[in-house]
Amino acid sequence: MNKQEFFRQILRGKANSPRDNATAFAPSNIALAKYWGKRDTELNLPCNSSISISLGSLGTKTTLRASNQDRVVLNGEEIPLDKPFAAKIINFLDYFRANLWQGAMEVITENNIPTAAGLASSASGFAALTLAANDFWNLDLDTKTLSAIARIGSGSAARSFWQGFVKWQRGKNPDGLDSYAEPLALAENSPSRNLRLALVKIDEKAKKNPSRDAMIHSAKTSPYFSAWIATAEIELHKIEAAITSGNIQELLQLAESNALAMHAVMLASRPSLLYLQAESIVAIKKVWDLREHGAEIFFTIDAGPNLKLLFEENADTRAIIENNFPSAIFVNPFA
Amino acid sequence: MNKQEFFRQILRGKANSPRDNATAFAPSNIALAKYWGKRDTELNLPCNSSISISLGSLGTKTTLRASNQDRVVLNGEEIPLDKPFAAKIINFLDYFRANLWQGAMEVITENNIPTAAGLASSASGFAALTLAANDFWNLDLDTKTLSAIARIGSGSAARSFWQGFVKWQRGKNPDGLDSYAEPLALAENSPSRNLRLALVKIDEKAKKNPSRDAMIHSAKTSPYFSAWIATAEIELHKIEAAITSGNIQELLQLAESNALAMHAVMLASRPSLLYLQAESIVAIKKVWDLREHGAEIFFTIDAGPNLKLLFEENADTRAIIENNFPSAIFVNPFA
Repeated sequence: MNKQEFFRQILRGKANSPRDNATAFAPSNIALAKYWGKRDTELNLPCNSSISISLGSLGTKTTLRASNQDRVVLNGEEIPLDKPFAAKIINFLDYFRANLWQGAMEVITENNIPTAAGLASSASGFAALTLAANDFWNLDLDTKTLSAIARIGSGSAARSFWQGFVKWQRGKNPDGLDSYAEPLALAENSPSRNLRLALVKIDEKAKKNPSRDAMIHSAKTSPYFSAWIATAEIELHKIEAAITSGNIQELLQLAESNALAMHAVMLASRPSLLYLQAESIVAIKKVWDLREHGAEIFFTIDAGPNLKLLFEENADTRAIIENNFPSAIFVNPFA
Repeated sequence: MNKQEFFRQILRGKANSPRDNATAFAPSNIALAKYWGKRDTELNLPCNSSISISLGSLGTKTTLRASNQDRVVLNGEEIPLDKPFAAKIINFLDYFRANLWQGAMEVITENNIPTAAGLASSASGFAALTLAANDFWNLDLDTKTLSAIARIGSGSAARSFWQGFVKWQRGKNPDGLDSYAEPLALAENSPSRNLRLALVKIDEKAKKNPSRDAMIHSAKTSPYFSAWIATAEIELHKIEAAITSGNIQELLQLAESNALAMHAVMLASRPSLLYLQAESIVAIKKVWDLREHGAEIFFTIDAGPNLKLLFEENADTRAIIENNFPSAIFVNPFA
């Protein structure tokens, strides 16, 4: 199945009465059990399930508006349509327009993720765009379906529809309709609600290896790719169990190991993919040193150089992070 | 089988007429197909075969001399016998003395490996000590047997008995007598003889994780250990074929991939083993950048932070290395 057919299947028979405009917000998310490897590159279907934590109020707000010509505006600045950022958005909307009202549109998108956070915004961006599209065209799709649609734009966008812990099921079907995310339920007083993040930016430059291409390269060339996939599903179940049982220390430990296992798969790719920079190593060793001295601080790292510190809310731990990573941006996923 | 039995089996029936003194030299070596993982920790038997290149005149010269008390002198400085360096040497000699003449001995050992090279000296050290012991006790053992003996002191010492390319066969027997090294034969005009090294020291501090313990930890905890071992033997054959066929560019590429695959196994261990330092990453990225600009420079890295650059002898390449790594120490393994 290709993308056209995927959208046609979902949008078939939908009413065709767009609003003047629609606005939606989606939070960014950080994977604790990583997604690395596609079983279908056309539909962005993953080899393994993944689990993320949302970033609360940090994310993307997007407005769609009927207009006389297509325009994309990011944080107040118009982006030429031949730039990849704008082209991807328009291309995504074209899959809707192929099946629905086909007029020109303005896309006004605002990221409130500070540049200093060193976070990609494609996850929250495609989730907000999908939510806005659902509203704009009055589609009334359920959130699972929206999650599967956003996945076409960016895999991790499937997880950006909820706050808190979210699990993206890899699914099995070739049409990808069973590959969507859902929130993980937590007890009201679960210690897992005490998870906090501190974003440590190493470098904000655009990635040299877009993760889409890098995943394909890893799958083809890393001698550890099959072991990564084989262990990823086992790891995921352990991480899910730690979240739902409220064993937050176990969760943080597993999340750190999971991230390093992903970076090891990348490192062993041929040619090698080394996302860590010199300053990443300094920060990693600093975290380990603090932990040796009793501080319960862990980290995860996506396909980039930046660290996301993970800790259980505690004034002492927070003070240690503030002292050692003065530019860290603190995030409460549950606020 | 334990170490006592291993030595007893080899030394049984040997003449017992020590000389006054004996001196031997052994070159250091750098693995191009790495040794990482033991199938027997008592006898230092590896999970996989490995291939190294010698470091020419860089190595260890050791003299054994009958004396009135045990002494160990390193580069002119007496080392107290309760220090690990001296204790390991005396302990190694005790396995000989348990079966032969048992008098006290002086061990005078000189490393000519510059501190700036950032190289461990245990490989050349145990090879030189084994050669000197063979001479001191008039044992007349063949080099294969000496290689197997030196392996007990330090695995990589098995490869330090020859100049040029050396292959350490993992062996299969539980007594470890078939786990020894041998030189790889090269045609007189083989391009493989043009391999040169440039040693780039990142840090000379003692390793935090001795490789003996780290290998055991990796084997127990890294999700990629079995994939490493499964691919190591295949890689080794490719590397051996590149050496003997004189395909030096293929050899350098394979050696770099092999080293990174080993570091990936380490990184994925739990807790993680991260030997690379910030400056290692800077140096790795510099090599890759030079290569993108056409310079045929590769590297290997042992269980430590230092890079060993690998290149085919060529004035331009050498000049590029001199410019970019001003403190590099050049080595001709065939001089």
